Order: sequence, then structure tokens, then C-alpha cells
Amino acid sequence: MRGKFITFEGCEGSGKSTQLRLLSEYLDKLGAEYVLTREPGGSEIAEQIRKIILNGKNTEMCDECEALLYAAARVQHLKEKIAPALERGKLVICDRFVDSSLAYQGYARGLGAEYVANINSFALENFTPDLTLFLDISPAEAFKRKHGADPDDRIEQLGLDFHMKVYAGYKALAEVNPRICAVNCLGTKEETQNNIRALLKMKGVI
Amino acid sequence: MRGKFITFEGCEGSGKSTQLRLLSEYLDKLGAEYVLTREPGGSEIAEQIRKIILNGKNTEMCDECEALLYAAARVQHLKEKIAPALERGKLVICDRFVDSSLAYQGYARGLGAEYVANINSFALENFTPDLTLFLDISPAEAFKRKHGADPDDRIEQLGLDFHMKVYAGYKALAEVNPRICAVNCLGTKEETQNNIRALLKMKGVI
Repeated sequence: MRGKFITFEGCEGSGKSTQLRLLSEYLDKLGAEYVLTREPGGSEIAEQIRKIILNGKNTEMCDECEALLYAAARVQHLKEKIAPALERGKLVICDRFVDSSLAYQGYARGLGAEYVANINSFALENFTPDLTLFLDISPAEAFKRKHGADPDDRIEQLGLDFHMKVYAGYKALAEVNPRICAVNCLGTKEETQNNIRALLKMKGVI
Repeated sequence: MRGKFITFEGCEGSGKSTQLRLLSEYLDKLGAEYVLTREPGGSEIAEQIRKIILNGKNTEMCDECEALLYAAARVQHLKEKIAPALERGKLVICDRFVDSSLAYQGYARGLGAEYVANINSFALENFTPDLTLFLDISPAEAFKRKHGADPDDRIEQLGLDFHMKVYAGYKALAEVNPRICAVNCLGTKEETQNNIRALLKMKGVI
């Protein structure tokens, strides 16, 4: 049986890395067979593309180029790693996927969600996650929590205004798409993790 | 007045580099103001993408990833270098452009010309060269001429069968598209250059 494909989404500093680490520890305890991966990257070629996207010196990169690079990295990651694991019946958990492009390039960069969805539909042949958990925390709150941001990261340089647009984009996507479940992140990290586990249980993933 | 945008196309070893060098010398003599550039590449970010595409170690790259990377490099090159030069009234001559993607990824890789045209239409907003010169020489003849091919070049590793499909793709594109003019390349390189100059004069480019 084909495995399930779960993606995690959220703004910078929303605690995705921490939550994925805690979930991973829990899945290990359960003895679950799963693959944990991330975007952009997740395969050798996709990681090479990731380096160009995130290189803080590439300030001249146009929005269309960025959107196409994300789609290129995504389809490579999908074909090389995600799809084969799902075919082997594995649970695949991915840190960011197509909704990141819709929120970041489509909404926040202003390319339009339709434009970005179209580019990705060619890349992914309408390949859609089974479930997407959106760590719902405002950028203002997320920035407060995140102190050690990498100053050379091109995405990090964009400032609060940009990330507020990303957040609004995620909210808009979650509103119209029942695949995307917002996770309450206002409590402690342990409480957030419990919310995530409850959601995954409710949806029959674990 | 907006400058003219001329692209050169052809299979590996079709003599594009030599012909572009000879044309460049001629344009210098004429005192023409022009920009000579190439794909994939032509800007710093596009050159970074070029390295990933042409890296002989990236054997796992899927066709969709390749097509998206070419489109990403193209739109960056277009926005950063080609479009500004055209706006300044310059003649822009580019070694390869969208027809390379249609012939290589669309026809020879088997993605389909429509698929590749669609990806590029998002990238280029239907930005089309004013004139495209296709150096019309069969791959068998071209391979005979080319001895010092780079063995680490991923595109070079593909063999004659692949390049025959590329050639057939170019022929099909030239047949339906009056923008693309086939250049007879069966004579000496000087004769080919004369054919190119005659075509450029006839089309009012020089």
C-alpha cells in the first residue's frame, strides 16, 4: 500500500525544526517506518539548487527565477526520494512543500498563487500531500522566539513585512483547502507537539 | 527604439561558437553596438544554474528538473541582461534560447514541445526573439567535425541517437515557425558565415 505524504508548513521561526525533531523522536519510539526530508533540497541535485536559492549574495534573483528554481528542486526531490519511499509504503514527512512556494512566491513576492500553482502543476503532475500541518504563529511572535537567525540567508534578510505577507498567504491557503490543518502553536513546544500528534492520530496517519 | 533580439540555434558541434566569433569580428568592423551572450548562463546567477545543468555527475537529474532549471536560468538572463540591453536599443545576439529547450527537452527528452513551451511561457511572458538562425547540419556531420568534446559535459555524454532527435526537433520547429531561418552549413566556415551575414542583411538586422 502506498505510504502517506505529510508536509509541514509555516513562517520562519514557527518552530518547524523543533516540532519535526520531537515528532521524529516520538515516531522512533512507536517503531514507525518513516522518511523525514526537507525542501528546498532533500536530494543531492536539489541541495545544489537550494544553495543557489538561499545564497545571500544572489540579491539580483528575479521572482520568476526563484519560483522556477523551487519547482525544479521540488520535482527532483519528489522523483528521486519522496515518490519511491511512498511506493515502498513509507510514511514521508517533508519540511515545506508546494504550499511554501504558494505562500512565499505566490502571495508574498506577488507573482500570484495561480502563476506559481501553474509552474508547479507542470513539475508535479498535480502530486498533492495527503495532509499538511500549518504551524499557525504570527511572524511577530515567531521573530521574538528566533534569535540565532543566519544573517547570510537570503530569505532571512527580507524583514517582518515580507513574512507578514507569507503568513497572510498561508492563512488564505488554509481557509480554502481542507488538506491544510492549522496547528495552534501559542502554548509551550510540548503543547504544540501534543496538538500535532493529536491531529496525526485523528487523521489516521499514526 | 528597442533593439533587435537574434538567437542562434543548432546541435552540438554545429559550429555556433565559430560562427558567432566570426560574426562578432564583422560587427566590430562595422562599428555596430551589440551584446553577445549565451545560454544557459549569461548572468552570474544563471551561470550558477548552468553549472548544475552541465555537471556530468548529475546523472540522476530528471527531465522535468532540467527543463525547469533551463527556464529559471533563461528568465534571470532575460531580466538581468537581455531586456535592459534591448531597451537601450542594443542588438542582442544570444547563443541558444527557448528553441534549445523545445528541441532538447521537448523533442529529444520526450517531455513534449507543448509542456516545455508552457513552462517557458510562464518564465518569459511570451518574450520571443525577432529572428532565430538555425545552423542546419546533421548530428553525424557535426560529430565528425567536433573532436575535442568535453567528456565531463552531461549533454555531451548523450550520444548520437539523442542528438539526432534534437536535430529532428529543430527541423520540426523551423518548419512551422517563420521566425526560425535554417542556415546552410555544408560549405566552409567562411561560406556559412557569408550565408549568415546575407540573412541578417535581408532581414534588416545589419
